Amino acid sequence: MITSLSNPGIVAVRKLLQAKERKTTRAFLAEGLRVVGQAFDSRADIQQVIYCPDLLVSEFGQNLVDRARALGIDTLEVSQPVFNSIARKDTPQGIAAVIGQRWCELKAAAPAAGEIWVGLQAVQNPGNLGTILRTCDAVGAKGLILLDDCTDPYDAAAVKASMGSIFTIRLFKARLAEFQEWALSHPDVSIVGTSDKGAEDYASVRYAAPAVLLLGSEREGLPREYIALCRHIVRIPMEGACDSLNLSVAAGIILYEIYNQNRARRTE
Amino acid sequence: MITSLSNPGIVAVRKLLQAKERKTTRAFLAEGLRVVGQAFDSRADIQQVIYCPDLLVSEFGQNLVDRARALGIDTLEVSQPVFNSIARKDTPQGIAAVIGQRWCELKAAAPAAGEIWVGLQAVQNPGNLGTILRTCDAVGAKGLILLDDCTDPYDAAAVKASMGSIFTIRLFKARLAEFQEWALSHPDVSIVGTSDKGAEDYASVRYAAPAVLLLGSEREGLPREYIALCRHIVRIPMEGACDSLNLSVAAGIILYEIYNQNRARRTE
Repeated sequence: MITSLSNPGIVAVRKLLQAKERKTTRAFLAEGLRVVGQAFDSRADIQQVIYCPDLLVSEFGQNLVDRARALGIDTLEVSQPVFNSIARKDTPQGIAAVIGQRWCELKAAAPAAGEIWVGLQAVQNPGNLGTILRTCDAVGAKGLILLDDCTDPYDAAAVKASMGSIFTIRLFKARLAEFQEWALSHPDVSIVGTSDKGAEDYASVRYAAPAVLLLGSEREGLPREYIALCRHIVRIPMEGACDSLNLSVAAGIILYEIYNQNRARRTE
Repeated sequence: MITSLSNPGIVAVRKLLQAKERKTTRAFLAEGLRVVGQAFDSRADIQQVIYCPDLLVSEFGQNLVDRARALGIDTLEVSQPVFNSIARKDTPQGIAAVIGQRWCELKAAAPAAGEIWVGLQAVQNPGNLGTILRTCDAVGAKGLILLDDCTDPYDAAAVKASMGSIFTIRLFKARLAEFQEWALSHPDVSIVGTSDKGAEDYASVRYAAPAVLLLGSEREGLPREYIALCRHIVRIPMEGACDSLNLSVAAGIILYEIYNQNRARRTE
């Protein structure tokens, strides 16, 4: 059992809480019974399981350690102070995993008829990103494209908010030029931008499929270079004093409109 | 200028960051240019303005202090270390206000035709509560009823997420018995509950107005005593591995469905 806070293996794990280290290692740390269970269920690239026997009391948790051993995954038994040093939860459950990030190539992405995709440009809040991943999962979206400098989907807050969808939604990363090229080479894909100055009410548009819903950053919205690629620019009508919705709420409202139209078509 | 961190006035202000103190004083602390500006614009019960000249550099900010003085509101000039001691923002803007809470009596609430109301039962996350307030504002909802032990809408995180809607949406507080009595005495109000086991797809229900949308806590959902009061129990259909949506996203999706139906009726 590792009892030293400065054990090199533990230092390496703790470093994964930093964006820079996640970028270098292309791995991340997932913590808690639920998320580690989901990692196993979705055949994520689990590289190491860290557990603390004093905290990991449930049978479900002990089974996860057994599953790791059965798959030949490296396991690390640690003391409670050591586990607390890598934990972010207020009440740590005694299990965490180092998991390889999965990024797909946008070049190879070809949305098929009926599919919903989402593009987020320069989104800053990891909670928003994770919550949008969760909604992507709910509407059966096939991919999330992170454009320009977005927050890291493998940040602990994003992973937590995604409720396991971090393992099920395919992730892509691109900058403007690459996305422009991709959009031009997929003319069948309907790119739908969002803006509070959008010409069309989101609820009155008939969304062609495949659709990519594009949302800009919390503060700035979509830059005009992205707006120029859109078949529709939609706005969500609003009453009241406030001039915008929370980004993940706005994404949810429009994604469900597209999803409802897809569902209606399927039963026609 | 106050330069002592232990100045009694500052100690009292700092205490407002605690739920217990907010309960006793029925006041709260709002921080930042935007939210203090909104408090003035919505004629909130501003009891004191705290400002730090070294941080408050914009003309907009200085005007807020002038507005406070013109209205005879107590102003407190403080040093930068003192302001930082009451600030929650990463980059404090040098203005904050002590504001009186506003609670309305449920007994006196009578939703009119066409109105949307929201009830949250035992919701725990202040960010969710604030985000739902923001969406309430967007759909022109007339009141938010907090049922049983909800998190405090005047918590700093809720106030921040509400983006000023904390000042515009009327707030009510009730326990089961009082809400039951109120529901029975307002048979024209259509209470709509939400549950992942709901019998009706939220998108296929014709919502009668006035409607009260009821949402339960993040973990437990609505207790059966509340379900028993509902005319409809709706569910949001979902694909994918995850079995629920973020609470504020779910609220947004259903509120916009009700709002869209109301808008369609208005233009008929």
